[in-house]
Amino acid sequence: MFHAEHPDGQVVRREHDLLGEKDIPVDAYYGIHTMRARENFSLSGLPSHPRLIEAIALVKKAAAEANMELGFLDKEIGAAISQAASEVMAGQFSDQFIVDALQGGAGTSTHMNVNEVLANRACELIGAQKGDYHRVHPLEHVNLGQSTNDVYPTGLRIAAIWLIRSLCDACAQLQEELQAKEREFAGVIKVGRTQLQDAVPVLLGQEFGAYAQAVARDRWRLYKAEERLRQVNLGGTAIGTGLNADIRYIHLVNEKTRRFAGVGIARAEDMVDATQNADVFVEVSGLLKALAVNLTKICNDFRLLASGPYAGLGEIRLPEKQAGSSIMPGKVNPVIPEAVNQAAFHVMASDMAITLAAQAGQLELNAFLPLLAHHLLGSIGILTNAAKSLAFSCIQGISACPERCQALLLGSGATATALAPHIGYDKATELARMAYHSGRTIEKIALEENILTAEELAAILRPQAMTRPGRGK
Amino acid sequence: MFHAEHPDGQVVRREHDLLGEKDIPVDAYYGIHTMRARENFSLSGLPSHPRLIEAIALVKKAAAEANMELGFLDKEIGAAISQAASEVMAGQFSDQFIVDALQGGAGTSTHMNVNEVLANRACELIGAQKGDYHRVHPLEHVNLGQSTNDVYPTGLRIAAIWLIRSLCDACAQLQEELQAKEREFAGVIKVGRTQLQDAVPVLLGQEFGAYAQAVARDRWRLYKAEERLRQVNLGGTAIGTGLNADIRYIHLVNEKTRRFAGVGIARAEDMVDATQNADVFVEVSGLLKALAVNLTKICNDFRLLASGPYAGLGEIRLPEKQAGSSIMPGKVNPVIPEAVNQAAFHVMASDMAITLAAQAGQLELNAFLPLLAHHLLGSIGILTNAAKSLAFSCIQGISACPERCQALLLGSGATATALAPHIGYDKATELARMAYHSGRTIEKIALEENILTAEELAAILRPQAMTRPGRGK
Amino acid sequence: MFHAEHPDGQVVRREHDLLGEKDIPVDAYYGIHTMRARENFSLSGLPSHPRLIEAIALVKKAAAEANMELGFLDKEIGAAISQAASEVMAGQFSDQFIVDALQGGAGTSTHMNVNEVLANRACELIGAQKGDYHRVHPLEHVNLGQSTNDVYPTGLRIAAIWLIRSLCDACAQLQEELQAKEREFAGVIKVGRTQLQDAVPVLLGQEFGAYAQAVARDRWRLYKAEERLRQVNLGGTAIGTGLNADIRYIHLVNEKTRRFAGVGIARAEDMVDATQNADVFVEVSGLLKALAVNLTKICNDFRLLASGPYAGLGEIRLPEKQAGSSIMPGKVNPVIPEAVNQAAFHVMASDMAITLAAQAGQLELNAFLPLLAHHLLGSIGILTNAAKSLAFSCIQGISACPERCQALLLGSGATATALAPHIGYDKATELARMAYHSGRTIEKIALEENILTAEELAAILRPQAMTRPGRGK
Amino acid sequence: MFHAEHPDGQVVRREHDLLGEKDIPVDAYYGIHTMRARENFSLSGLPSHPRLIEAIALVKKAAAEANMELGFLDKEIGAAISQAASEVMAGQFSDQFIVDALQGGAGTSTHMNVNEVLANRACELIGAQKGDYHRVHPLEHVNLGQSTNDVYPTGLRIAAIWLIRSLCDACAQLQEELQAKEREFAGVIKVGRTQLQDAVPVLLGQEFGAYAQAVARDRWRLYKAEERLRQVNLGGTAIGTGLNADIRYIHLVNEKTRRFAGVGIARAEDMVDATQNADVFVEVSGLLKALAVNLTKICNDFRLLASGPYAGLGEIRLPEKQAGSSIMPGKVNPVIPEAVNQAAFHVMASDMAITLAAQAGQLELNAFLPLLAHHLLGSIGILTNAAKSLAFSCIQGISACPERCQALLLGSGATATALAPHIGYDKATELARMAYHSGRTIEKIALEENILTAEELAAILRPQAMTRPGRGK
Repeated sequence: MFHAEHPDGQVVRREHDLLGEKDIPVDAYYGIHTMRARENFSLSGLPSHPRLIEAIALVKKAAAEANMELGFLDKEIGAAISQAASEVMAGQFSDQFIVDALQGGAGTSTHMNVNEVLANRACELIGAQKGDYHRVHPLEHVNLGQSTNDVYPTGLRIAAIWLIRSLCDACAQLQEELQAKEREFAGVIKVGRTQLQDAVPVLLGQEFGAYAQAVARDRWRLYKAEERLRQVNLGGTAIGTGLNADIRYIHLVNEKTRRFAGVGIARAEDMVDATQNADVFVEVSGLLKALAVNLTKICNDFRLLASGPYAGLGEIRLPEKQAGSSIMPGKVNPVIPEAVNQAAFHVMASDMAITLAAQAGQLELNAFLPLLAHHLLGSIGILTNAAKSLAFSCIQGISACPERCQALLLGSGATATALAPHIGYDKATELARMAYHSGRTIEKIALEENILTAEELAAILRPQAMTRPGRGK
Repeated sequence: MFHAEHPDGQVVRREHDLLGEKDIPVDAYYGIHTMRARENFSLSGLPSHPRLIEAIALVKKAAAEANMELGFLDKEIGAAISQAASEVMAGQFSDQFIVDALQGGAGTSTHMNVNEVLANRACELIGAQKGDYHRVHPLEHVNLGQSTNDVYPTGLRIAAIWLIRSLCDACAQLQEELQAKEREFAGVIKVGRTQLQDAVPVLLGQEFGAYAQAVARDRWRLYKAEERLRQVNLGGTAIGTGLNADIRYIHLVNEKTRRFAGVGIARAEDMVDATQNADVFVEVSGLLKALAVNLTKICNDFRLLASGPYAGLGEIRLPEKQAGSSIMPGKVNPVIPEAVNQAAFHVMASDMAITLAAQAGQLELNAFLPLLAHHLLGSIGILTNAAKSLAFSCIQGISACPERCQALLLGSGATATALAPHIGYDKATELARMAYHSGRTIEKIALEENILTAEELAAILRPQAMTRPGRGK
Repeated sequence: MFHAEHPDGQVVRREHDLLGEKDIPVDAYYGIHTMRARENFSLSGLPSHPRLIEAIALVKKAAAEANMELGFLDKEIGAAISQAASEVMAGQFSDQFIVDALQGGAGTSTHMNVNEVLANRACELIGAQKGDYHRVHPLEHVNLGQSTNDVYPTGLRIAAIWLIRSLCDACAQLQEELQAKEREFAGVIKVGRTQLQDAVPVLLGQEFGAYAQAVARDRWRLYKAEERLRQVNLGGTAIGTGLNADIRYIHLVNEKTRRFAGVGIARAEDMVDATQNADVFVEVSGLLKALAVNLTKICNDFRLLASGPYAGLGEIRLPEKQAGSSIMPGKVNPVIPEAVNQAAFHVMASDMAITLAAQAGQLELNAFLPLLAHHLLGSIGILTNAAKSLAFSCIQGISACPERCQALLLGSGATATALAPHIGYDKATELARMAYHSGRTIEKIALEENILTAEELAAILRPQAMTRPGRGK
Repeated sequence: MFHAEHPDGQVVRREHDLLGEKDIPVDAYYGIHTMRARENFSLSGLPSHPRLIEAIALVKKAAAEANMELGFLDKEIGAAISQAASEVMAGQFSDQFIVDALQGGAGTSTHMNVNEVLANRACELIGAQKGDYHRVHPLEHVNLGQSTNDVYPTGLRIAAIWLIRSLCDACAQLQEELQAKEREFAGVIKVGRTQLQDAVPVLLGQEFGAYAQAVARDRWRLYKAEERLRQVNLGGTAIGTGLNADIRYIHLVNEKTRRFAGVGIARAEDMVDATQNADVFVEVSGLLKALAVNLTKICNDFRLLASGPYAGLGEIRLPEKQAGSSIMPGKVNPVIPEAVNQAAFHVMASDMAITLAAQAGQLELNAFLPLLAHHLLGSIGILTNAAKSLAFSCIQGISACPERCQALLLGSGATATALAPHIGYDKATELARMAYHSGRTIEKIALEENILTAEELAAILRPQAMTRPGRGK
């Protein structure tokens, strides 16, 4: 192998590919394919998600082990590759994955980056030099029986599942905090609002219970998302037909990947389909978007309910996290919900990116998986951070303002509805209008006008009863 | 009741509400609330979806029957309302639903339109005049124990499920047609393409099989979508607390609705949540979008594979549906896939409308359900039409061009991959490059250069074998 | 020409095309191409926009006149076509345009529908029978020198401009109503809110002035949108090269179209580009989306400011348009802003449909113009309705609640900011916090703590002065 | 000022704010507000865009200079702040901007980060210690007469304009490269395709000319985008009313900012509007999206035209940038167009994020500017990289395959259209169909069937003539 010292003192090794030759820093674990990709792509300035790199390394490990076991791969080489993969899975060599997250090709560049790092590390492990590809070859050994088109999407699915599990945990914590407030605020009665107009009584606890229930649905969805992501095309190689992959290898590599990943992956029945169609990612992104919608709703409500502190609704107080203004002294803003609102918008936009990428697949492959991966894994991560932040930096510290809730309820016409079954809708309408225009309460007018007796009113308008099913008395 | 003849000869009845009075054409089944809504809203010029009207009428029927059974509603009145609802469910009075699909309020106007039509028709049925609301009152009788906020979304869910079932059938037909072609084209070998570049051999049948598999996933998703839509908040009234709804009524109205609709609806555990959160619609829309993505992919592929007829890929022929051009004689275009492409884009856009509506809910209600309903029901309908059109006006008539497939396969370097396990990736690369630059086939060069014998080549390059798992020989 | 009576009594004429023959109702002005398209497409159930039909007819008229003038078209035939086109432009024969708005092909079906209606009407006008295409031929005469690919997008641009002018007028009215309120509310001082938290004083008039200013920007944008749409590819025929179009005809047809349409259209310099690229429609849709964003903001603010009537901000009152609830007596909702909110969401979704259609163009043509046209013209129309509705059914009737505004301002800490330049940010913060926690006003505390004198406070905290630039004094 | 050594050896200074105290690493230029924001926000893990930081620093410099000139700020302090700002503008202290790009608040945290870094650096410059805020105070001095709500959006607009100018340059280069190919390929005649079906002749040069023209439109749009971004609300302070900002300061700070930035900014007439409404960013994002649509179209076409190399259209060859596959030897993929496709999708998704952020503004402020800034600046950057990459790594190296173009043209029925004016549309249709079904050329059949003479055919079907306006002969 050719080594040389460049005029600038950098020592390099020379590698070649079908386009020619290139000098690689002698210490680099990556090789010529990575180097070209590095030069070709600089769109985002961001690396691929670390979990994706780890999951791809995991698949390579499974393949090496399967190939060894079946006698396709020399034991020494296979063991070295397997060891190298374990190291990458543990986060080592993370500075060697240098290709931009947004890259042409369906992930080939990131995949080759992994192949080269593993090959060079394996070379080292068996006592050869980096670049000694006749000892451990990035394609003929590390990639034996594999293709970007089965390894990369399999890695993507595993990485997504790992991240979704963290998101699941975060949502569980979010739900718990909401439920804690549901219990804490079970006695705080207030006016419910529909279309931002005073409607009928509700408990503050019921409001938090409704948020908790929405998040519970999201947890169920995330569980389903994992289920949907489990079908992989590993062993399908280039286009899902399995060309160059021994059938025993296909079974074994899937089994080993399942075991190493701790994820119940299963080989897709039709790997041609699984190689070219990305609809499952759209489905999963849609589930994430539903969570984003719930977070938006919750945060919008928090900001409304905590508006003021004086000239707003002021029914709850959010914990104070930082000074809110560089000009307005004493102002404190609802920054955590605002940040979560933005996270949710970000996820909705990523859903669009994922959709655009998925619908653009052509024939045997979807060439736009890198964009899809970037947005999918990014969405899951940002939602996880958002859910935790909302749970611990906001909800945990929310307090109620029961007097304010009470005062607003009493002043509103929220009791008219409960009277309707007893005095008729039209009469109740009349009462409500009189109250609104005169500033007196409905109860007062009903008494003065002898529409109902004090006893009747008391029976119908028991506050807590109005927050449960039933027709008054 | 006041009746009058207007100067223009129209005979009217006068109705009143909290804002005053209004003259209604004496023959109209709708009333003053409908009339005001008609005047207030003229955004889209389109009516609400007929299935939505029918489903709301169905809920009103269930409520009337439940209220009668529990003694809350006089039998004569209840029976008349129930009968009127049956008539509306059968599509009668469809010209009486005159409110624009895009309306302010969370569906109140459409709901009141139904309440008024039922009340007036019920008046007729018991021998009273239209407008005799002291006999049958749109609110006190027809709407007894109900609110727009539980009736409308329940109707929406039922309508969506009905429509999804039709879509399911259409997808089953689509899958069948694709599978028929999978079998028909099982012997047509061709070049597979990744990133639009010649890759490895594949069967045309495998391509159609992959489409069929994707559609199978969509069918499964639609089945899940129905499951997700089943939880209703019927009985929750204004904000989900059930104010003014007797607990026995709540159970009964749900049971009757389930029975009348033929849909396994179930009362949501937390109706406050179910009243204010629209995330389930986002989830369902996401599932529909995955179908739209699959249709896009399939139609894009059809248009590519049928491109030409001469200067394109020309591997398949689509059935000719119409002359294609007003200027180019003899041109025939792939109009069915193009139309389905547009249907799919339309559905993706509707997913955005649904998301925007859902995330904008505030506190106890989502005020933007009419927009959501318009896009959700519209999406399902357009997908149903698209799936059927694709199945019967396109796929059924597709024929293969096996000679063209064969010729393109032979000329491509698609066999290099199969050689790699036998001669090494680097050598195979060299061969492929020589073939590409010289215009000779890889096989020819391999023979001439004594890289492999004719026997070896024959064993490795059996065409059908290259479309299945295995390492050649 | 073949005429026959069908078993069901319908009299038909038989027409043929490259696919065979078809019976057409003898009275129909459309012909076989329309009939096939009608059968092929039934996605949306909606017709093409009437303005689009009229604009295409206008282009046909211009072409007929140009062809006559240049001697390419017999005068009798040309005059008849021109007359027929005028009739269609006047809205006649509107029931003869029967093709679904969402159709495969780049508008060929709608275009052929116009060609056939004009040809058959022209036949009538010269005393021939409908279907006598050897007298007036839909292609050889009506379509002489034309192609769908130049006529349809030209028609689309003209229709869009016509509709945008109406939208411009509606926005002018919207701005005027907002400015009227700006003046009316110039004396109403209130608390400004940032991030929904009490900030510093503002005039209610300033708030309406800001809305008016935003709408003024939209008007300017719409003016620009018209400018952007003016470049047409008329005369470019099939792919913009102008094949089959005499250069004199190209000049003349553009001149006549400009004159008939009353729109300053200009032939694109590069008609190949103008035929295949739809980016201008994306640009225009983006401008419409900016308007939708402004409408969303305005309506959200209206709903917030009018929230209550008791338990909300209650700073303004919206005009009451209809009873708001089927269960809550006396409730009135902000239905006009809610409807406009939905219109705005609809437009944002249509922007996505337009983007998807535009980015999917391939090579010499964009085949998805029908979807694009449907959403673009639809968006403009719905925005026009929304702007008018907001102006006249909402803003015109808005009243202020000056006492409520005053009370909320006084209770808030909105004056702390004005003190900061005089006592320092940190001291002002301290004051604001004390006020918030004690419920006393900042002024009171500043006096009690001898931080400022009554005179100083009065000078700094003049309410109106705090709504203008300046450091108090 | 309190300094202490923590148990872990870190030396800290103690700072306080309205929530209490916090220890800051003694070497840090940021302070307590930054620290809290750092702890509060960790959604994206990404910093704010460096250009945004520089632009904010620029505004602070302008403010310091204006305040000094007007005597509001001590000269020594002002000069130190100005110097510190210049250093930040030059990229120094970039590791001190540590707040997550996605943050609650309308940019207050990033703004405070800048205020604190400038204050502490200014302290150093005048010989004080970091943290000596009584010497240079982040708010009372650095932020004098300013608010996040005017400084941050002004900085955002300046940063966007700077980046747009780079994008403009990149688009100019892209256009030039396309035009170079327009000239180079002016003699390459080929079949034009509409709806992927063979249509009429076109020059390869015309195709590249059309791309160039589309990019020319984008350049014009970018020029307009700068124009649209110039209106700033600097001096409007908290809500645009200018509270605490002397009117002379307002004029001066705008003038200085204009000069320092080299950007023709102008103070908005209505700063209340300009503070709360973000529609201009939506407008600008829409213009960027139009560019993304054009890039998508161009790249899709490149990938189609270069498909093959054998079993595709193969009319052009893209430069080879890297080996394309880890399994298929010799395969080279169109990775640059694929990457640019993904960049374009990314930008379309960001347009959605920007729209969501913009439409969510409430009352006097839009709290979601950080998300908007992240996506807007990100979009411009990624488009710049994409345009350059496409120009230099792809287009520059594209070569034509004229023989392939010629062969495909001859085999197609692309000449039928030119015959139609001479033999009629119906006859031409017949010819085209015979050619298609028999595999013979139209010319041959026309001769054999004595429809036209060889001379007539030669006159009508001159290839180059068919790519220009005219009716043959």
